[in-house]
Amino acid sequence: MPATEKKAKIGILGASGYTGAELVRLLLRHARAEIVLLTADRRAGKPMADVFPQFAPYALPTLTALAEADWLRLGLDLFFCALPHGTTQTVVKDLLARAPALKAVDLSADFRLADPAAYARWYGHPHAAPELQQKAVYGLTEIYRQEIKAAQLVANPGCYTSCAELALIPLLKAKAIDPDEIVIDAKSGVTGAGRGAREDMQFAEVSEGFHAYGVAHHRHMAELDQEFAKAAGREVVVSFTPHLVPMNRGILSTIYVRGLKASPQDLHAILLKSYANEPFVHVLPFGAIPQTRHVRGSNMTFIGLAADRIAGRAIVGSVLDNLTKGASGQAVQNMNLMLGFPETMGLEQVALFP
Amino acid sequence: MPATEKKAKIGILGASGYTGAELVRLLLRHARAEIVLLTADRRAGKPMADVFPQFAPYALPTLTALAEADWLRLGLDLFFCALPHGTTQTVVKDLLARAPALKAVDLSADFRLADPAAYARWYGHPHAAPELQQKAVYGLTEIYRQEIKAAQLVANPGCYTSCAELALIPLLKAKAIDPDEIVIDAKSGVTGAGRGAREDMQFAEVSEGFHAYGVAHHRHMAELDQEFAKAAGREVVVSFTPHLVPMNRGILSTIYVRGLKASPQDLHAILLKSYANEPFVHVLPFGAIPQTRHVRGSNMTFIGLAADRIAGRAIVGSVLDNLTKGASGQAVQNMNLMLGFPETMGLEQVALFP
Amino acid sequence: MPATEKKAKIGILGASGYTGAELVRLLLRHARAEIVLLTADRRAGKPMADVFPQFAPYALPTLTALAEADWLRLGLDLFFCALPHGTTQTVVKDLLARAPALKAVDLSADFRLADPAAYARWYGHPHAAPELQQKAVYGLTEIYRQEIKAAQLVANPGCYTSCAELALIPLLKAKAIDPDEIVIDAKSGVTGAGRGAREDMQFAEVSEGFHAYGVAHHRHMAELDQEFAKAAGREVVVSFTPHLVPMNRGILSTIYVRGLKASPQDLHAILLKSYANEPFVHVLPFGAIPQTRHVRGSNMTFIGLAADRIAGRAIVGSVLDNLTKGASGQAVQNMNLMLGFPETMGLEQVALFP
Amino acid sequence: MPATEKKAKIGILGASGYTGAELVRLLLRHARAEIVLLTADRRAGKPMADVFPQFAPYALPTLTALAEADWLRLGLDLFFCALPHGTTQTVVKDLLARAPALKAVDLSADFRLADPAAYARWYGHPHAAPELQQKAVYGLTEIYRQEIKAAQLVANPGCYTSCAELALIPLLKAKAIDPDEIVIDAKSGVTGAGRGAREDMQFAEVSEGFHAYGVAHHRHMAELDQEFAKAAGREVVVSFTPHLVPMNRGILSTIYVRGLKASPQDLHAILLKSYANEPFVHVLPFGAIPQTRHVRGSNMTFIGLAADRIAGRAIVGSVLDNLTKGASGQAVQNMNLMLGFPETMGLEQVALFP
Repeated sequence: MPATEKKAKIGILGASGYTGAELVRLLLRHARAEIVLLTADRRAGKPMADVFPQFAPYALPTLTALAEADWLRLGLDLFFCALPHGTTQTVVKDLLARAPALKAVDLSADFRLADPAAYARWYGHPHAAPELQQKAVYGLTEIYRQEIKAAQLVANPGCYTSCAELALIPLLKAKAIDPDEIVIDAKSGVTGAGRGAREDMQFAEVSEGFHAYGVAHHRHMAELDQEFAKAAGREVVVSFTPHLVPMNRGILSTIYVRGLKASPQDLHAILLKSYANEPFVHVLPFGAIPQTRHVRGSNMTFIGLAADRIAGRAIVGSVLDNLTKGASGQAVQNMNLMLGFPETMGLEQVALFP
Repeated sequence: MPATEKKAKIGILGASGYTGAELVRLLLRHARAEIVLLTADRRAGKPMADVFPQFAPYALPTLTALAEADWLRLGLDLFFCALPHGTTQTVVKDLLARAPALKAVDLSADFRLADPAAYARWYGHPHAAPELQQKAVYGLTEIYRQEIKAAQLVANPGCYTSCAELALIPLLKAKAIDPDEIVIDAKSGVTGAGRGAREDMQFAEVSEGFHAYGVAHHRHMAELDQEFAKAAGREVVVSFTPHLVPMNRGILSTIYVRGLKASPQDLHAILLKSYANEPFVHVLPFGAIPQTRHVRGSNMTFIGLAADRIAGRAIVGSVLDNLTKGASGQAVQNMNLMLGFPETMGLEQVALFP
Repeated sequence: MPATEKKAKIGILGASGYTGAELVRLLLRHARAEIVLLTADRRAGKPMADVFPQFAPYALPTLTALAEADWLRLGLDLFFCALPHGTTQTVVKDLLARAPALKAVDLSADFRLADPAAYARWYGHPHAAPELQQKAVYGLTEIYRQEIKAAQLVANPGCYTSCAELALIPLLKAKAIDPDEIVIDAKSGVTGAGRGAREDMQFAEVSEGFHAYGVAHHRHMAELDQEFAKAAGREVVVSFTPHLVPMNRGILSTIYVRGLKASPQDLHAILLKSYANEPFVHVLPFGAIPQTRHVRGSNMTFIGLAADRIAGRAIVGSVLDNLTKGASGQAVQNMNLMLGFPETMGLEQVALFP
Repeated sequence: MPATEKKAKIGILGASGYTGAELVRLLLRHARAEIVLLTADRRAGKPMADVFPQFAPYALPTLTALAEADWLRLGLDLFFCALPHGTTQTVVKDLLARAPALKAVDLSADFRLADPAAYARWYGHPHAAPELQQKAVYGLTEIYRQEIKAAQLVANPGCYTSCAELALIPLLKAKAIDPDEIVIDAKSGVTGAGRGAREDMQFAEVSEGFHAYGVAHHRHMAELDQEFAKAAGREVVVSFTPHLVPMNRGILSTIYVRGLKASPQDLHAILLKSYANEPFVHVLPFGAIPQTRHVRGSNMTFIGLAADRIAGRAIVGSVLDNLTKGASGQAVQNMNLMLGFPETMGLEQVALFP
């Protein structure tokens, strides 16, 4: 890096959660980013190493309460918002109003739905920042790269949705599969549920077992509906069932599709071509279905497609690490575009397996 | 137990594997069964506690080579065959030929398919005991209870198949779902793969990850085809994808179905009624999908059904412990019927959770 | 069971926690016990199956608030108290005062220390029922069998302490090891921490990692001090470090000891002899150290002893399931003695492995 | 990196195992290293992605049989030898004889013991390359940095030994602890056992359980004896018990020591001072004991020390990732020194938690 390239000043709101920690992990090794603010209201005043001891060897700002941050002095270029759904919209609205040159990547669901009515329906209350909701760009980089480059506010997609959308959007755009016959059976590790203490996320409640949850009414459906409709040019409603796997990281979506005058091989060819030049999407050879462990800790998505034994049907497998490509890695990828950095900067880590 | 009730003499062929150990666990506490033979060719001469140390406190026969067993002296009433697929058919044929009063429950796949052509197609060679293949009764007790009572040889069903069949057979028999629109997305713990050392079953290869396997060509499909066709009275070919969960025991089948003039509530009512008096099948309230952990170590199957968000479609969840109701518990249940014991004897264990 | 043997009426206070559920699991299959009361203040009014779905197939009393229980009508013979440490002492005092014939097994730490001064020192406040504290019998059955038979109130021992005490008390009583040179390095599964939601017990915080906790100041030390001093006839202070293993059930104590004119073989012989007739303690052959998985879900303790490579020193391994022999199984064993039932009744389950 | 800095050509012998994969993970992102050779005899001819699918997106040499490698053409600067113990010594001898400028880091145990008699005693046969055994430098970088810079052959230390030695060598060198009173109770994840299929390493044999192994006779003792004796200037024999934790990566050594005229605070001060400038050793504040998860996937060692409740005694906790600082990361650290690169190059990854 030439000495003249100065680093961007980055803040992370909500640094005591898992996506916050993942952002720190990535940004500590990013050549052009400098973490200058870490907020965590309940842990304010503590060093980050008290909350995540893995950071003990590194110099990082002390955790600050959101209300205590000295925004003027900090001179942030961009902030990541890893706050809970709901509180986010007012926080982001307030901050962007104060500093119009400031950019933001929001990791919550608050700005993912462009339609105020859809938001109100799925979340049970009107949006508190509808004008920002309109301006926010949906941050699935491979699909909205150009818009993201120009965006002030990017709504980072959900983990389940990223996984399924990367697999299906090219097929829907090509009108190669039947939009009425899609079943997404998704399985996720536990970190998708966040760090807050919950009885049902205790080790003894999760380990040595497997279950579905949110059957027929999971909020990520709203995002899928929006993005699949855009891709297909018509309404698309899919069956979607999330499951909890006793593991920390990773999502596998097993997706059942039916070709429209397209053989499974045709479908595979569409995926291969769509992602031929993408640094973070790798399409496996025909017939191979990927495993979550092979993308662990990396920003990669692996997609595979096999013929079902019923003619005309295919099974698509898509995997990513829900904290990396499904959240914080995706967010850094978006930051890179928004700040004019190479898209892969800071995201080169190879998956950690075993 | 009255003093006059003598115990049945039981042999377990292949006692060094997981289904063998599960049989020992159950039979050690069975009021009417006495284990008089344990075979394990590669461990012959060793005490069972060398192979499974949990049995150290109990008196059990020393492991014997199959060829060394003194069948006449043993006077077996029934034997369980927990040998690998393929070798089983000659062993069972030979033993039943020698002792026509002897009964057998076979836990392998060798006698599950009644059709010699189907067997040859799925297993790549003709059956070595086609006459026995015809006589064998498929041992899903809830479906074939009467036939099992009279059987000499019972073919204990596969773990995946038991799980899916218990959920779907009542619906297919009632012609309440569309046989052409069934997707079974199944997830199993690792013990279904047996105990033999395999690189892909090492802890580090399985833990902290999730994957599908046998996509579009798993042998349990043959069993599903047979039983679903019987239930529906016509050919039924389902989509079926098995996955490996980093846990020891348990299967969850998430099954996507479509009602034929039957609402999800109707489908649920059929299941409830079908299993109202079954000791080992429990149907959850409408809308609830069961978890594998809640049947761990027990002989129970829990089945739940919820409406999908797409009208007319439903999601069925079925769980069992693959080593108990999916293998050895089911086998003891069959033994109880074959020997005239109460069906639940020795199978009363409550699930071990957490 | 002869028709004339009526069942004892049993209550479980604190049924929504793990030791409560384990008591239910065991008592549902106990020939002489009938569960007539289950309390859980925050879940009062709900069926037990809402809290622990594994019990859905069984008839059980609805959860009741402690203050709402109709003690007179219930006519309890014995209750298990699985309430948190601290609140227990007033509850037990109050109940036993009302019904002098009532018996109780307390699973908390409240009555384990006989010395009021020791209690105050370790728990930071004076005991609220010091007269009961004196009467309570320490419930390690193998050591205090006679006293337990006659007791009204039994203080069930801690899980770590049971594991270490069963291994060391015979050696200390025999004055065969140096009481000043004992190191207990203990490792436990997570259920020892109970069910309440805690950030540090979330799956993602526990899995794929290992750590020590309570280093040099864990409350089980008070119990060890008391029991080891009784056994040795002098003060004994041991090094004790507990660790958390990413597993649900089980404790292994690795204990480093030094013989006093006793070889490792002598030490082993003492253990063998001490437990020769005990149904729930199994001593392994010299040189073998047991594994936690082989006692999972059973009431067994396995103890092994090997020579260290340094002359005169030995390594003792002791395992039990912290919820069974380390808590609820031990409690049922005590109930059996207190109510005149066979000691092993309801505790015959063979360990669940794999 | 200036354009003039050319990359070193690196070979990895035994690339199909876990330490091989970990080397590839690290070297793929090393600015000055280029992998030009990957050997794996049983997988020769296959792409690395067949053996470790996480590498599918990267360009890597095809796996080659060791005997087929074209050494002259390759022009290797350094090779890592990740072959099994025993076969290594002839392979390394042969290769270094052919190319005297070639350097090697051996990850097996073959060259760790400098004393031929000790080697023969622990391994049961004379060393096949005793002259190389003399020349090899023990590769614990923090202790032998200068010797490693000048070495042709570095014997990378064992994982258990690295973990315990980094904690104890400074204390022994300072004569601050009693060399006759050291107990090392070590716990490791499963990847330390390698990738080869073993029944006792199957998921179902390891998960949900905990056990000790190699009690009183583990080969890493030989290494500990050698290095502790060097540090203390006298013979040191420690108690050492390894245990298997159901997790993939990480070692925690819980070490019981006694001060020699040194308080626990003094011992802590010695550790702090010894590692003040080390990039890969971080000493925690007094009283804190580290967790394995906080170094996962990184090259860090975390060391903590707390006072025991017995005066004069202390408990030391030392953690590292057995595949990184305990094997391949340590090996790359040594490579950096041997080839004149910055010591931390390619090893900057922050730990992956959760």
